Amino acid sequence: MNALMVFYILGHVLRIEGVFMLLPALTGLIYQESNGLYFLYMALFLFFIGFLLSFKRPENTTIYLKEGCVITALSWISMSYFGALPFYFTGEIPSLLDAIFETVSGFTTTGASILPDPEALCHATQFWRCFTHWIGGMGVLVFLLAIIPMSGGSNINIMRAESPGPSVGKLVPKMRQTAGLLYLIYFFLTALEVLFLVVGKMPLFDSICTSFATAGTGGFGVYRDSMASQTAYLQWVVTIFMILFGVNFNFYFFLLYRHFKKAFKMSEIRAYLAIIIASVTIITVNTINIFGNVLTGVRHSAFQVASIMTTTGFASHDFDMWPEPSKVILVILMFIGACAGSTGGGIKVSRFIILYKSIRKEMKSYLHPKSVSKLTMDGSPIEHDVVRSVNVYFITFMILFTASVFFVSFDNKGLITSFSAVSATINNIGPGLHLVGPTQNYAGFSDFAKIVLSFDMLAGRLELFPLLMLFNPKLYFSKPIFSHKAN
Amino acid sequence: MNALMVFYILGHVLRIEGVFMLLPALTGLIYQESNGLYFLYMALFLFFIGFLLSFKRPENTTIYLKEGCVITALSWISMSYFGALPFYFTGEIPSLLDAIFETVSGFTTTGASILPDPEALCHATQFWRCFTHWIGGMGVLVFLLAIIPMSGGSNINIMRAESPGPSVGKLVPKMRQTAGLLYLIYFFLTALEVLFLVVGKMPLFDSICTSFATAGTGGFGVYRDSMASQTAYLQWVVTIFMILFGVNFNFYFFLLYRHFKKAFKMSEIRAYLAIIIASVTIITVNTINIFGNVLTGVRHSAFQVASIMTTTGFASHDFDMWPEPSKVILVILMFIGACAGSTGGGIKVSRFIILYKSIRKEMKSYLHPKSVSKLTMDGSPIEHDVVRSVNVYFITFMILFTASVFFVSFDNKGLITSFSAVSATINNIGPGLHLVGPTQNYAGFSDFAKIVLSFDMLAGRLELFPLLMLFNPKLYFSKPIFSHKAN
Repeated sequence: MNALMVFYILGHVLRIEGVFMLLPALTGLIYQESNGLYFLYMALFLFFIGFLLSFKRPENTTIYLKEGCVITALSWISMSYFGALPFYFTGEIPSLLDAIFETVSGFTTTGASILPDPEALCHATQFWRCFTHWIGGMGVLVFLLAIIPMSGGSNINIMRAESPGPSVGKLVPKMRQTAGLLYLIYFFLTALEVLFLVVGKMPLFDSICTSFATAGTGGFGVYRDSMASQTAYLQWVVTIFMILFGVNFNFYFFLLYRHFKKAFKMSEIRAYLAIIIASVTIITVNTINIFGNVLTGVRHSAFQVASIMTTTGFASHDFDMWPEPSKVILVILMFIGACAGSTGGGIKVSRFIILYKSIRKEMKSYLHPKSVSKLTMDGSPIEHDVVRSVNVYFITFMILFTASVFFVSFDNKGLITSFSAVSATINNIGPGLHLVGPTQNYAGFSDFAKIVLSFDMLAGRLELFPLLMLFNPKLYFSKPIFSHKAN
Repeated sequence: MNALMVFYILGHVLRIEGVFMLLPALTGLIYQESNGLYFLYMALFLFFIGFLLSFKRPENTTIYLKEGCVITALSWISMSYFGALPFYFTGEIPSLLDAIFETVSGFTTTGASILPDPEALCHATQFWRCFTHWIGGMGVLVFLLAIIPMSGGSNINIMRAESPGPSVGKLVPKMRQTAGLLYLIYFFLTALEVLFLVVGKMPLFDSICTSFATAGTGGFGVYRDSMASQTAYLQWVVTIFMILFGVNFNFYFFLLYRHFKKAFKMSEIRAYLAIIIASVTIITVNTINIFGNVLTGVRHSAFQVASIMTTTGFASHDFDMWPEPSKVILVILMFIGACAGSTGGGIKVSRFIILYKSIRKEMKSYLHPKSVSKLTMDGSPIEHDVVRSVNVYFITFMILFTASVFFVSFDNKGLITSFSAVSATINNIGPGLHLVGPTQNYAGFSDFAKIVLSFDMLAGRLELFPLLMLFNPKLYFSKPIFSHKAN
């Protein structure tokens, strides 16, 4: 384990968090709020410890996958801890554990809140709360890759650990360039949403915060009722941008490099859109008695389907009141999630495509036990390793999910609440059903349940293994293994 | 596809069902019930069509895995249909669909009932209802293998399709002998339970029926309140026999051949017992306020854990009233299920052992990407094919499960009812929670939901693929595939 390099990068991460914290401090200055000072102090503190940790660049800068995992897990945990302190110091969230829950929920782009009323926050805090979504959506390590140079294969091992989805392709030869381009597209789309919202007469501050929450597919709103009392235009704008941010960013890469054919042939994007259209259709029909009017029905169905599938978690209507088949569809969408390589959470559409293909292959092997076939996606073969790791991912996910429901059930809040609270956090969505429905919040859970749910949010965002790795004792006490050769 | 052979074996299956039906006819004669005559007529009818189908032995008796699957699926569907007719003709179940649901539930050893009161049935019908569990527990095709000779590899392909669990080992050189021994052990254990129950002063008829339901891990009781009002002794006897029938029958084989060391080293049996002990302990502590007394608590916890984990479905107490963590454990046990190669349902303990090992392997590959390791179980390596098919099984299971919950949710009975009804049928357990709790029944579902749940029971019992295969169009329109060579 290259511990020096782990601390070196961790130091950089905290320095970047410090830079990011200057923005809410600035917001405080603009709105003349004394709370802004806490963000300034925190930023200075982060510069200080960041500087201590990354004082000297280690001689051996090589990072393998295990270091990538450890760096990612530790970065996210410490970012969440330090990111929570301003909420606590300003007194706007009086319990430290609640503040950590809220910040983990922010960085992991979950959007599950313990606050009954976000409108009660001051501007600086509100800005930071939504900004954590924006930072977490693309990942701070990806940001780091864009700005500091690292040796050859090291970048990809960090990127693999932090990016959502089964595989990260090298889209352009240099990883650093890829990371930079990703952030550029991300920034551009966010700015575009701000523009559209401002055109729809949403105040600039609210537009910026809402766009941060959409871009990161997070879901922290600035309004008490999320998006329910906004105009139909604003709801549609948010719906469309939620869908856009749930798209695999490779799609935008292809567009940028004018590979239009390749872009529109991506089977993940097609499946993603097909699922959205099918779900909206069924829910519109199923809720026709509630909305009376097809247009209103389509708007709320589309909003909710986009919000849940991309794991954003905004609400335009209290879907906990919808008929059961609609609710079941929403729960299913929670698990499917967005595209790989997007800012969204969940298990990811491409994993389901691979799972579907491996089931079809299994069925085929019953017909022709001796035939050999290879799975393919978008024309290129899916490596055996990817298939195996997708299968294992799915199973690990289910086991972690089940264990979490068991732990949360000690709160005795009813099976639907326990089940949907875990679904909504592990998939990084936010609102669930019943006591954690869109008009409720997570404040009522015990400390123990909040810790379990925070863990689930982190595990969901980091795609399980980087976080679970921390619990592998072999990570700390490893004997040299002779069969293991460096790349 | 060797269609002639499919029909030939199907004919034999129906003839055997005819023979089995003579037993309830005899029961009717003993108790002087005219309803017994319907079973006699049905038996004669089954002899007749069985004779027509298996009139001539086909020249080519070779069976591949696909024929094994088709034979199994068709046998179970037709056995359920014909087995349901007596319930319908006697008028004791007025709706044909309900009668089919009840019979599918019987043969698949689920024990989900549409009857509010089994005590209202006459003896002949009650006998047949419980006897379907006994037949379905070990499988009628296994019975067939024991009595008719078949060419070399064919037996194993039928056995593989019908037997629960990831793999069927050849325990003794001749498959026919294996099948015979299986039934012998099965018969002996059942008789032993009858003896123990009669000693505890349960009437002989009730003891026989209860033992059938325990042996098949079915759960149809002869009493209105299942086992709730029986003595502690009788409840303990049933608890122990439920656990015994949930054990991998290889264990008994090893005992029979005096391979004691091998028997007690089976990791599946150890894991199975460990899960039972852990669950009983947690539930006893969690329900201490309900029972007041540790001994009573242990008795009910052990009864319910054994009943749910072996997927029997008897109840000694209304567990729907237990605290939430206990209910979550019961739901988890529903999915884990019994050992492979037992009469129990669920996903099976050995599959979870394999899943756990493949997760551990995945975690290891993060530490040492280049190391090559092979999974092993009880000392011998687990073939790559087995691992893959266990993974695919788990995923297919989850997808079928989710789709079924969606379909059943159109009944709008609440998410817990829909979720637990599907869990209790697809895992072949019987009672679920809320409206399908241990004091309730399945009569209130719509016809559509009953069809979905019946399908789930069959899919669960036949381990998904044989049944799903019927929906594979390639089964019927297969072009010759050149890469496919006969074995």
